[in-house]
Amino acid sequence: MTINESLACTAVATKANVYFDGKCVSHNLTLADGTKKSVGVILPATLTFSTGAPEIMEGVSGRCEYLLTGSSEWVASGAGEKFSVPGNSSFQIRVSGEPYSYICHFG
Amino acid sequence: MTINESLACTAVATKANVYFDGKCVSHNLTLADGTKKSVGVILPATLTFSTGAPEIMEGVSGRCEYLLTGSSEWVASGAGEKFSVPGNSSFQIRVSGEPYSYICHFG
Repeated sequence: MTINESLACTAVATKANVYFDGKCVSHNLTLADGTKKSVGVILPATLTFSTGAPEIMEGVSGRCEYLLTGSSEWVASGAGEKFSVPGNSSFQIRVSGEPYSYICHFG
Repeated sequence: MTINESLACTAVATKANVYFDGKCVSHNLTLADGTKKSVGVILPATLTFSTGAPEIMEGVSGRCEYLLTGSSEWVASGAGEKFSVPGNSSFQIRVSGEPYSYICHFG
């Protein structure tokens, strides 16, 4: 289990994405090959996100629990762990205590 | 007045810096020449920050007002505008309404 404390990129969008009154904040990144990712953080809260493209959430600090649409089971995920969310779907995520920092991979 | 919507970089620290219960969130960046900067956002609040190195705050979205230590005058600063804070000092910053996204330049 590797914790990716740093991510190579070529550009960052300087305007933050602020969701749910700041319970989730992220910045969009462009990688050398043109791939788009984001880095963000979720503060203690239970939030529902919708996906367009499929997403892989990769924890880098703290921990969360997530509930995929259609599932009845909350699953824990922490630093160095990943989980996948289908496209055109949604998921709930809850964080308590330390903020959950993540990398979001699209597609 | 140019608004820098994108910033070239080579790496981003994936763990967010969370200050004041999330009223300020930033991510550290490394540029190609080794320079360190950060991109962040301040939500509606009045906050006091201390500086080690001198800082230049560059707004990219929203607006703020700031009060440097030793000054009695709050000054407005918005997207495309910069202000300088001396090293080993402090400043107050207040945001109301839309979040204030910024680039922080050090040194």
